[in-house]
Amino acid sequence: MRVAILMGSESDLPVMREAAEVLRELGVTHQLRVLSAHRTPHETAAFVRAAEADGVEVFIAGAGAAAHLAGAVAAHTARPVIGVPLAATSLGGLDALLSTVQMPSGVPVAAMAIGGAKNAGVYAAQILAVADPALKQKLIERKADLQRQVLEADARVRGA
Amino acid sequence: MRVAILMGSESDLPVMREAAEVLRELGVTHQLRVLSAHRTPHETAAFVRAAEADGVEVFIAGAGAAAHLAGAVAAHTARPVIGVPLAATSLGGLDALLSTVQMPSGVPVAAMAIGGAKNAGVYAAQILAVADPALKQKLIERKADLQRQVLEADARVRGA
Amino acid sequence: MRVAILMGSESDLPVMREAAEVLRELGVTHQLRVLSAHRTPHETAAFVRAAEADGVEVFIAGAGAAAHLAGAVAAHTARPVIGVPLAATSLGGLDALLSTVQMPSGVPVAAMAIGGAKNAGVYAAQILAVADPALKQKLIERKADLQRQVLEADARVRGA
Amino acid sequence: MRVAILMGSESDLPVMREAAEVLRELGVTHQLRVLSAHRTPHETAAFVRAAEADGVEVFIAGAGAAAHLAGAVAAHTARPVIGVPLAATSLGGLDALLSTVQMPSGVPVAAMAIGGAKNAGVYAAQILAVADPALKQKLIERKADLQRQVLEADARVRGA
Amino acid sequence: MRVAILMGSESDLPVMREAAEVLRELGVTHQLRVLSAHRTPHETAAFVRAAEADGVEVFIAGAGAAAHLAGAVAAHTARPVIGVPLAATSLGGLDALLSTVQMPSGVPVAAMAIGGAKNAGVYAAQILAVADPALKQKLIERKADLQRQVLEADARVRGA
Amino acid sequence: MRVAILMGSESDLPVMREAAEVLRELGVTHQLRVLSAHRTPHETAAFVRAAEADGVEVFIAGAGAAAHLAGAVAAHTARPVIGVPLAATSLGGLDALLSTVQMPSGVPVAAMAIGGAKNAGVYAAQILAVADPALKQKLIERKADLQRQVLEADARVRGA
Amino acid sequence: MRVAILMGSESDLPVMREAAEVLRELGVTHQLRVLSAHRTPHETAAFVRAAEADGVEVFIAGAGAAAHLAGAVAAHTARPVIGVPLAATSLGGLDALLSTVQMPSGVPVAAMAIGGAKNAGVYAAQILAVADPALKQKLIERKADLQRQVLEADARVRGA
Amino acid sequence: MRVAILMGSESDLPVMREAAEVLRELGVTHQLRVLSAHRTPHETAAFVRAAEADGVEVFIAGAGAAAHLAGAVAAHTARPVIGVPLAATSLGGLDALLSTVQMPSGVPVAAMAIGGAKNAGVYAAQILAVADPALKQKLIERKADLQRQVLEADARVRGA
Repeated sequence: MRVAILMGSESDLPVMREAAEVLRELGVTHQLRVLSAHRTPHETAAFVRAAEADGVEVFIAGAGAAAHLAGAVAAHTARPVIGVPLAATSLGGLDALLSTVQMPSGVPVAAMAIGGAKNAGVYAAQILAVADPALKQKLIERKADLQRQVLEADARVRGA
Repeated sequence: MRVAILMGSESDLPVMREAAEVLRELGVTHQLRVLSAHRTPHETAAFVRAAEADGVEVFIAGAGAAAHLAGAVAAHTARPVIGVPLAATSLGGLDALLSTVQMPSGVPVAAMAIGGAKNAGVYAAQILAVADPALKQKLIERKADLQRQVLEADARVRGA
Repeated sequence: MRVAILMGSESDLPVMREAAEVLRELGVTHQLRVLSAHRTPHETAAFVRAAEADGVEVFIAGAGAAAHLAGAVAAHTARPVIGVPLAATSLGGLDALLSTVQMPSGVPVAAMAIGGAKNAGVYAAQILAVADPALKQKLIERKADLQRQVLEADARVRGA
Repeated sequence: MRVAILMGSESDLPVMREAAEVLRELGVTHQLRVLSAHRTPHETAAFVRAAEADGVEVFIAGAGAAAHLAGAVAAHTARPVIGVPLAATSLGGLDALLSTVQMPSGVPVAAMAIGGAKNAGVYAAQILAVADPALKQKLIERKADLQRQVLEADARVRGA
Repeated sequence: MRVAILMGSESDLPVMREAAEVLRELGVTHQLRVLSAHRTPHETAAFVRAAEADGVEVFIAGAGAAAHLAGAVAAHTARPVIGVPLAATSLGGLDALLSTVQMPSGVPVAAMAIGGAKNAGVYAAQILAVADPALKQKLIERKADLQRQVLEADARVRGA
Repeated sequence: MRVAILMGSESDLPVMREAAEVLRELGVTHQLRVLSAHRTPHETAAFVRAAEADGVEVFIAGAGAAAHLAGAVAAHTARPVIGVPLAATSLGGLDALLSTVQMPSGVPVAAMAIGGAKNAGVYAAQILAVADPALKQKLIERKADLQRQVLEADARVRGA
Repeated sequence: MRVAILMGSESDLPVMREAAEVLRELGVTHQLRVLSAHRTPHETAAFVRAAEADGVEVFIAGAGAAAHLAGAVAAHTARPVIGVPLAATSLGGLDALLSTVQMPSGVPVAAMAIGGAKNAGVYAAQILAVADPALKQKLIERKADLQRQVLEADARVRGA
Repeated sequence: MRVAILMGSESDLPVMREAAEVLRELGVTHQLRVLSAHRTPHETAAFVRAAEADGVEVFIAGAGAAAHLAGAVAAHTARPVIGVPLAATSLGGLDALLSTVQMPSGVPVAAMAIGGAKNAGVYAAQILAVADPALKQKLIERKADLQRQVLEADARVRGA
């Protein structure tokens, strides 16, 4: 697999699955995993090292609240890490956003929007597409599809 | 030593030293350490385990921005962990506060005020004083000192 | 009893009861009480002093809005106080979090996550376990349980 | 004295003195006091009761961070309490504002703007003026002065 | 009537009515009015002047969003004005709170908690009670009732 | 004059003057005035009505804190009102922004960025240019100037 | 048409339609369009230029999250642009508000309240009414209607 | 060049230059450019298309306030875009962070910390290193350097 999709809790699956769905549509191999920065720190570290050795090229990590998972992954790899802050508390995801994005110098995490698992899948594919022209072509088509959908919506609304 | 005081960066020393100062005044053995959740994850984990084996009873961890250090320590020990969010970014410490306090169920971190390293020292001593009557006596005297200082300030202000 | 669990209003019971549940599972004696910093200040102060005399070693206080209860308890004891900010207003608990955590120098309150009553129970036990190896062992087993639950969830998600 | 002006720390004096200055100008007897909700809870409670017995009709309380002082005063009296949130931390007074204003049902505190000690003095006088026509007349003149100052500034700016 | 209760929109009635209810219980004459700072500025100004001339001693004003009503009332009277910020938008009342409380020097508004109409009624009565011992007595009894309710809740929870 | 530029306090002049400067450059007649929603409500209302009668076509109003001035102007005219929230408190202008922009249905205020007085001048000119082709031409040239400045900066940075 | 109403997504239609409704009532020609700053940047730019050439005098743009649409429109025209931030994420529209209002110097967007599409319609009409006395008359009548509605509500509430 | 570093204003150069410095150290070709989403939308779009045609593989875009630059770049390319929110206003970069990170589905931007230009350089290199083992080796060495620096700081602090 080329992309590992981690989440801190099984309850994050309905959102994080959207990243997997995008990668599936684009033909990018991937795996969904539940691993916690706080409850399974050893397994998380071990998984990241093993995954990198096995050829994983991009990591996606989704977590809510004090969302440390993406940062914990980034601590153990030099591969690109994409963080998805999740709205899991009464603060609407502001806590997860700041915990994900405000990383210290030298250990970046690429933050997506709150709940932006779909975009995490797209971004992982964009990273891989840097050296994969066929994948890049699929992304360009996907972008064209988005464009078409807006134009169709525009036609509907103008006609309304 | 009974208390380990960790900070994510040497630049946190001027604030975190206040925790050490309180413990020194109270006669509690302690050590100041620079260890990063993101730059030295192995050393951090190894230190926590070794420290616990060596008899450390309370951990204090101060960090700014996406302040994961206290959470990373809590992931590796069942000892009480005290987190000190530091105001290290343009958000005035709100990022560090939320990253420190919003811990998931099962892995608590006790958050102090933003920049509250002195209180972290006091709280560590309060924890140890649960089973240490002599230390508790010192804390009670310290509390009485605080009270006296307020009353003296009150006398000055009334006379002004 | 070793732990007193205070709440500012009976409506906080469904959340604060989780702290009691954790302590019950760990075999730590405790009591749930409704006492208000603003409506029953005398009774709150009297309770804290009496409780400490009766051997209470840790206080947990949960409150919403201008959440002063934990601070009011800390004003009357040198025992460790754990504050649980509750999401009781339209601000999602940000008011209670700041009212609980931003304590002045010398009078610390250990803040848990918003609504984090379960973690308050865990943290109280961690404090008591500093001098209670049997309780520490239970906490280590509990931590291992959490780990197992994540690994089981991981197995389910990988198999999905 | 008719108005008691409390502050949690001597460092609040430069701001809180503005309340006293307004009352001095309006001829309302008052006293500045340093009393802390957290460091001198007994003295604070005792002072409030004694002050009320001595005829204090309005309380002003200024505090920063987890600003509990106004709420603590309100817990001990049915007299009107005016709270002045102070910008004493890296959060610019948002913490003090929420700690002051979000009081529970039945125990109101009247919050002024962050740092609004001068307005606290004016508001205390407005309360007393309800039953004091001479004082009300002074407040009306003061309001007219404010108006005059704006019109003079307007003249300067138009001429510029 | 002694207290005028203004609201910016009829939709604020369910909340603002709580202020009237408190005053009714305390036997304080009052009137509920819908007047808008933005839609009926003349009528608002005229009402404030007429009400003051008719003997209104305290104004309560509740509004949401850019909550200018309390400030607009305060602009036209030297009587005490109590502002109730209402949670009428997707920002949970933070907009109304800041619009109500951050008044400029010389024109204070006493802000209650977001949605705190009941406390506005209590506070208005506290203001009037400064010169009305019978009303003060009722407030003291009300405060004792609150205390009793907490103690009863405490008894229920302890017995649970 | 075609545009009236109001500010709540003379201390706002250094910022609000930038709106006047833009209008001067564009040859749009205007006047700077100090008028306060809270300290001179009558004069503010009277000015708006008189100004409209005299031919003022657009109002600009800058204010900080509980920034009601733009809303107060909008209450008295159907002319377009542009609000400039100013960063005048420890909250960095968030209070003024929300007080300015969150206007109720039917009485719009067009909010500029915090401190955006220059843009208020540009926007006033854009409004007038709807029916003034010569002014529109000047705005197009100004926009081209901005573009040129960016391209020159780009040349400098590329060459660096 | 005189006013173009853009939205970033068809899901914004229920809110943005309110702007069209106001313009319909006022007899101002307009068109609703779905165009995205991010998904159809070319079409958006092309539309703005074509619309301006066709005589569109005011643009309204509504978008949520990182709400760039209004800014993207303003980049391509010197006509007045009105931005409507929409509450489309877990942050309640704060993200859209800041993305809409904090425009750089030289390229203003006039921000309405979060979800304030109705006011965007009113404001567009106010802009056009600067040179259209008949339209101004309709706006004055509309304002009088608003006033009447408040007075009727007041009558209902007083009678209640 | 492989990486294009865009900034919205020349005043952003001191921060954005740090991204260039990292890439220079890592031997990654790059170019610094000033291009504005609002002032030079055509040139920005044209540059992105030309740069992609010329082989640019990653875009970095830094901007403050309503920071649309990264989003505007992402609208025109399927290459990975890294956004650096800058603290350019009184809101401390919260505006730029939300404007950068809250991108709609299908058009991701990878947000770095506020002011995190150095990390943007690192992240761009991490993306390129997916298909460039030599670059990956340099990143691993850089990570080891960071680790060494923390351990050296630790030695200093322990010895202090």
